Amino acid sequence: MKPLFIIKIGGNIVDDEMALEYFLKSFAEVKLPKILVHGGGKLATRVAEAMGVQQQMIEGRRITDAETLKIVTMVYAGYINKNIVGKLQSQNNNAIGITGADANAILAHKRLAKIDYGYVGDVDSVNTDFFLQLLEKDMVPVVAPITHNGEGQLLNTNADTMAQSIATALGKLYDVTLIYSFEKSGVLLNVQDESSCIAVLTPDYYQSLKEKQLIFAGMIPKLDNAFAAIDAGVAKVIIGNAAVLPDLMEGKAGTTIQYG
Amino acid sequence: MKPLFIIKIGGNIVDDEMALEYFLKSFAEVKLPKILVHGGGKLATRVAEAMGVQQQMIEGRRITDAETLKIVTMVYAGYINKNIVGKLQSQNNNAIGITGADANAILAHKRLAKIDYGYVGDVDSVNTDFFLQLLEKDMVPVVAPITHNGEGQLLNTNADTMAQSIATALGKLYDVTLIYSFEKSGVLLNVQDESSCIAVLTPDYYQSLKEKQLIFAGMIPKLDNAFAAIDAGVAKVIIGNAAVLPDLMEGKAGTTIQYG
Repeated sequence: MKPLFIIKIGGNIVDDEMALEYFLKSFAEVKLPKILVHGGGKLATRVAEAMGVQQQMIEGRRITDAETLKIVTMVYAGYINKNIVGKLQSQNNNAIGITGADANAILAHKRLAKIDYGYVGDVDSVNTDFFLQLLEKDMVPVVAPITHNGEGQLLNTNADTMAQSIATALGKLYDVTLIYSFEKSGVLLNVQDESSCIAVLTPDYYQSLKEKQLIFAGMIPKLDNAFAAIDAGVAKVIIGNAAVLPDLMEGKAGTTIQYG
Repeated sequence: MKPLFIIKIGGNIVDDEMALEYFLKSFAEVKLPKILVHGGGKLATRVAEAMGVQQQMIEGRRITDAETLKIVTMVYAGYINKNIVGKLQSQNNNAIGITGADANAILAHKRLAKIDYGYVGDVDSVNTDFFLQLLEKDMVPVVAPITHNGEGQLLNTNADTMAQSIATALGKLYDVTLIYSFEKSGVLLNVQDESSCIAVLTPDYYQSLKEKQLIFAGMIPKLDNAFAAIDAGVAKVIIGNAAVLPDLMEGKAGTTIQYG
């Protein structure tokens, strides 16, 4: 199978103009086919504050009410997405920005949980044909973390999960490497120490680290997504620093998630 | 040549939730191939006010400074575009939302004028191949009035002009009907009287009405765009009320722009 890189950049990179610029330069040099999935960043919070939209939190988690959905749609699908597309275009990458609603790319349903998270989507399906169409035309999909339910409702969706879902769907047709890139060097044994990066994380090792509470809580959803991808047939998942993308791609940096 | 409808909806329709819903229902029933181009509306002004971004005006025209560009990109390419796409998807229209930056769809340059309008784009070229690709896959492009200059700069661009440019480019391959739909019944002889709609407007008639100052100033750029489209080979241009889209398409309502 042909290799395909699916690279997700986290919100802290999106927030930092210099870091984003640097990342996009190295991303632009990655060979086709490739897909970029971006997170949200703090701009949505700043816009909400400026507009006087109160951010509701329940048990430490943000609730996406109607006004917040409006703001994240503006910021993620509008500002962040189109700026990345414009910058990649200027570097001869034929980028095309999409949400899950565009061409019905990613269908989701409103999360059903004890806590009502509001307009938050859990992914149901990925339109593999559409992604294939773009990739076969040498386009570079740039995916914003917004999906839809097929009934006219947009939904705020976790970007890590979107990257995992796309990787899983395309893993049947490509030899997919899924890279979660962010501001840290990888999965750290000591969250204060960038040099404590774990080179290889297996399910058993992950389980034992979780039991010893040695995994930083914020990493758990990302790692659960990473293992879900591997479980579903994605060839490789790497977590590491967006500033060293070429090294991550070659497995020379970051944490590689693998079996055995 | 195959018929193609390119339909532009104005900002007042976009602003009015009921009118937009009604319009999208009738648009969804239009046969393929078709393209929707949408304007901006007052939401950008409201977001700017809420965020405390002062709107600079010179000679009655809004200046797109860096902060305003950020806001229009959020509102036009994010909020408005993705909501329209989600709603069309729910009506079995395979909508895909794009700006001029996506897939390099529409290239523009920053307007060079005595007045510095800021980040305002004048269209240079339309990526006909990309539009063709989408149309041939039975997708419905939904175009937001943002372009790029190919060097990483997004540009705020007049939606009427974008519709005209797309119509002109595709007029070489399709029998294009360009419809400017808005809240009025067409080109009015008396701007206060909806029944004073001119059925057919020729260049000579337009010239004579302009000389008598009988054309509402706000209509002049739209009409200049309409005549430019006809000049460049677009088969038909119709201006009229978004609420009677099927009648506009059949030439039973609105103003038809034509020669002789």
